[in-house]
Amino acid sequence: MLKPEIRKIVILGAGRLAVNLSMAIHKKGYDIVEVCNRTESKGKRLAWKLKAMYIPEPAMITPDADLYILAVSDTAIPLLLDRIKTGNRLIIHTSGSVKMDVLREVSENFGVIYPSQTFTDHKLLRFRNVPLCIEASSGKNLLLLKSFAGSLSEKVYTINSDQRRILHLSAVFASNFTNFMVAISQELLLENGMDFRILEPIIRQTAGNASSDDVFKMQTGPAVREDRETIREHLQLLSNHPDYKEIYDLITRNIIQRKKKS
Amino acid sequence: MLKPEIRKIVILGAGRLAVNLSMAIHKKGYDIVEVCNRTESKGKRLAWKLKAMYIPEPAMITPDADLYILAVSDTAIPLLLDRIKTGNRLIIHTSGSVKMDVLREVSENFGVIYPSQTFTDHKLLRFRNVPLCIEASSGKNLLLLKSFAGSLSEKVYTINSDQRRILHLSAVFASNFTNFMVAISQELLLENGMDFRILEPIIRQTAGNASSDDVFKMQTGPAVREDRETIREHLQLLSNHPDYKEIYDLITRNIIQRKKKS
Repeated sequence: MLKPEIRKIVILGAGRLAVNLSMAIHKKGYDIVEVCNRTESKGKRLAWKLKAMYIPEPAMITPDADLYILAVSDTAIPLLLDRIKTGNRLIIHTSGSVKMDVLREVSENFGVIYPSQTFTDHKLLRFRNVPLCIEASSGKNLLLLKSFAGSLSEKVYTINSDQRRILHLSAVFASNFTNFMVAISQELLLENGMDFRILEPIIRQTAGNASSDDVFKMQTGPAVREDRETIREHLQLLSNHPDYKEIYDLITRNIIQRKKKS
Repeated sequence: MLKPEIRKIVILGAGRLAVNLSMAIHKKGYDIVEVCNRTESKGKRLAWKLKAMYIPEPAMITPDADLYILAVSDTAIPLLLDRIKTGNRLIIHTSGSVKMDVLREVSENFGVIYPSQTFTDHKLLRFRNVPLCIEASSGKNLLLLKSFAGSLSEKVYTINSDQRRILHLSAVFASNFTNFMVAISQELLLENGMDFRILEPIIRQTAGNASSDDVFKMQTGPAVREDRETIREHLQLLSNHPDYKEIYDLITRNIIQRKKKS
């Protein structure tokens, strides 16, 4: 008997994640046969790039693919599941927050490939470095997804649904909130006639510290030094930005507390 | 007449900044003649590395150096100024928050070289990429410091005391607060049995976005999408961490507000 294998793939979705993931799959030589997407222009554009067929309506996708990938927003997942028929073929979603088990209603074979990375519109990411977090409904499906994910990326982690939700939450802190901190600093610099690139090296260095096994040990600045004088001065400088002042105050108090615990 | 030049230098301080700065100066061939530091062991260790004399008492430093560098904590600056005698020689401090004018009490020639970078104990930084922000008491001193700083780093910015305070504040957001966000994410991952390196790529990518001329445009995640469902779920996941929950809530509300303004 032949080893079960993934060859024919259907992609549902044509957003940033769908584009990055499906282009990586396509480049590895898999056959993406159909792209299904509500917005015709986006769906057709992606289908064209993948040499795939564009399908406007979920109910009309082919029933004989080896893998169905839901690369859509969390809210779209249940809507799609109500309309597609995939028999017992393998179906996965790519969400950080949605439980794997929601897929049970359409197939006995299901799983998740969650890339813990953000994708942008303007540039395809090098997929080999994108961490792929996988979960599957059975040992057999896990092996299938492991080998599939492993052909796309060097970083494959097996985690369960609860861990995936925590991972997604952690990524909000590590990526979305850090980005907002940098956006605030950029705003302050520009407002005061300074070149925002002046902080590039310190930001790059801080990101480098993130691979340390105790990031809090790398903490520097007035909060961890409990330099009350500087903290007071900074809060005063922020009097025109009550919102940022509140953020400064809360994070500073947290850093001081955390230091006392450690 | 000879062009005024910096040759003989005295360093006051032997902390992380003092070590990084003085080693960079030493490597460029300047003559650091004395290191003055309260803690003898640290002062002697640095003096030995720089082939300089260790001086325990500020009042005893040589009066005929071309440049005196106060590389000490903000609170130590006034204490040192009360004790040293430098005639009218050029004296600078290296602080992000202290006004340049405090130096007026010891010399007519003064200035600031503020490196907008954090230094660690365990590793000397490549100084060529450290942004040096300079300010001086006169045009002549500014030229002197510009050429001196330019020999140490490729990135020399001229900014005034008010800008420097804002820059220091901005660096707290861009570096200290981002580091704390990453520390929180690491804590959550470890607590839930996950490898903290799983988020390395997304952190590196976020840092790369920092060179964008509108960092807020790069904002992703549930807050900027106003994905209330995910936000609610994340707040619930944080119920064991009321402190991090408060941070999540405040930053999320700020991102949503900021998006509405833009």
